[in-house]
Amino acid sequence: MAHITLPEGAPGIVGPMLAYPETEEHLNGLAQALLRGPSSLTPGERELIATYVSSRNECYFCTNVHAAATRHLLGPERNLVDQVITGGPTAPVSAKLRALLVIAGKVQTDARSVTAEDVANARAEGADDKAIHDTVLIAAAFCMYNRYVDGLATWAPKDPEAYDRTGARLAEEGYTHSVR
Amino acid sequence: MAHITLPEGAPGIVGPMLAYPETEEHLNGLAQALLRGPSSLTPGERELIATYVSSRNECYFCTNVHAAATRHLLGPERNLVDQVITGGPTAPVSAKLRALLVIAGKVQTDARSVTAEDVANARAEGADDKAIHDTVLIAAAFCMYNRYVDGLATWAPKDPEAYDRTGARLAEEGYTHSVR
Repeated sequence: MAHITLPEGAPGIVGPMLAYPETEEHLNGLAQALLRGPSSLTPGERELIATYVSSRNECYFCTNVHAAATRHLLGPERNLVDQVITGGPTAPVSAKLRALLVIAGKVQTDARSVTAEDVANARAEGADDKAIHDTVLIAAAFCMYNRYVDGLATWAPKDPEAYDRTGARLAEEGYTHSVR
Repeated sequence: MAHITLPEGAPGIVGPMLAYPETEEHLNGLAQALLRGPSSLTPGERELIATYVSSRNECYFCTNVHAAATRHLLGPERNLVDQVITGGPTAPVSAKLRALLVIAGKVQTDARSVTAEDVANARAEGADDKAIHDTVLIAAAFCMYNRYVDGLATWAPKDPEAYDRTGARLAEEGYTHSVR
């Protein structure tokens, strides 16, 4: 049972978002700008970073929702999702994404541990300022979303098809109207 | 030096907020709603929670900015700020705030560790659903802001008066126009 009263049957972050629209607006606005707005990273690459960070935080709901969204966005490369959840930067992703996953993992653990060398490695593989900025802020933001979901002990469905349906919708429509 | 190009002389989070207005809008909107919007917690209590979480994340810039804002908001009780930074829930704050600081500390470390008993303790001291919600989301959000500031290796002033001036402005005006 969640720690506060939330709309019945609303999964994960949707419950507190429906109950507290004054913060929902900005939480979804941030997700939309970060994961779907203009960037040198594709929405699939950005969702993969979000999935990786959520899995490191062991947030069941966020990991499963964003894994499903990433699979829909990556299409033929959908198998990368489980490989990144299991192996992080050892997964067979592009060299650029590998370097960015290293940065995202450090932001998740202790953001001060990101080094100039980590950033130089990402630049050498083609990451620009915007890619580095977005990687750091996606990793930071999912350290928030994950804690919001788990700190309130929200309900998470166990049915993989529920996540697949939500992932398909988020891949297609993004976050602008995700709960309303 | 910051890991990406940022406006010269802009301290801490202000640099990436100025450089990336598409996310700034939502980051400041969230701070305004969470720390200044309607709540059963005062702005001073909410800033104190933000300061505590920032100090646990050892984010120099955020700890100093929000400590300064909290001092301005608390007025005669300003000495509580350093006591909370040093001792967390052992500081001589109200029983309600003490119970909420316990929850905030757990969200900072591992949000799944917040127990029904922690929440019941806060309720017994007068915390309602909104206070519990806001505590969890403030703690979660500062796990984001802190990582954004430190993951990009932003510049932080060392002059205490710079923080005092910013804190006075945030206490008076909030976050709506904080960087523009």
